[in-house]
Amino acid sequence: MGTIVVGYVAKPEGEAALGRAIEEAKLRGSRLVVVNSHRGGDDLDAAASRQADEAMAVVKQRLTDSGIEHEVRQLVRGFEPAEDLIGIAEASGADLIVIGLRRRSPVGKLILGSNAQRILLDAQCPVLAVKAEG
Amino acid sequence: MGTIVVGYVAKPEGEAALGRAIEEAKLRGSRLVVVNSHRGGDDLDAAASRQADEAMAVVKQRLTDSGIEHEVRQLVRGFEPAEDLIGIAEASGADLIVIGLRRRSPVGKLILGSNAQRILLDAQCPVLAVKAEG
Repeated sequence: MGTIVVGYVAKPEGEAALGRAIEEAKLRGSRLVVVNSHRGGDDLDAAASRQADEAMAVVKQRLTDSGIEHEVRQLVRGFEPAEDLIGIAEASGADLIVIGLRRRSPVGKLILGSNAQRILLDAQCPVLAVKAEG
Repeated sequence: MGTIVVGYVAKPEGEAALGRAIEEAKLRGSRLVVVNSHRGGDDLDAAASRQADEAMAVVKQRLTDSGIEHEVRQLVRGFEPAEDLIGIAEASGADLIVIGLRRRSPVGKLILGSNAQRILLDAQCPVLAVKAEG
């Protein structure tokens, strides 16, 4: 059974990546590992942490409803999201990583952030890059 | 029927992209459009042009053997490969683009070239980035 790893954040690009990853898991009969990674530190106050938990509860329900075999990993251990995603992909023998590309509001222009670049270059398996709805 | 567009060059990253694109086309029941684009000009002398034609003959045979519906587009019209690939993807209503990421010899480190970056950011559909064998 193949493994797909998807990077999830509670933002339009994260939702787009998750939706596509669920489709790909169904198509390939793969299991899905959802990675929600945060460096932690000053950026993550109690309110933000609670919001993240609420978003993850919605994600877990969506995964259960999809009927695919899945695992949710929430990491706050001081690493950049790219490091966590690549590490988990390698440890789980992933054959595909799905990431969302984010838009720089308010103009909506896409950017290739440092995490996306690192994942594209450093991951051992192919990377599928999807965009949030324009 | 879906359409997958793949950028092909007669180099390891082009072969990796083509191989993966054929797999994806089989998996999804999609047709495949193979784009081999060259700006032309001084870089493309007679010998290079003949070599490119020989490589494309091999590609065409491989596609025929695969049994998938396909089309091969060779373009030399002064555009950057990214422009040609994005233009053809939009004109053909592609739902996936496959590209190969190249390694900078001799160290083998991967780079995200300007064409790869433009395709990742400007293509309307998801982009699958694959690597040549290490």
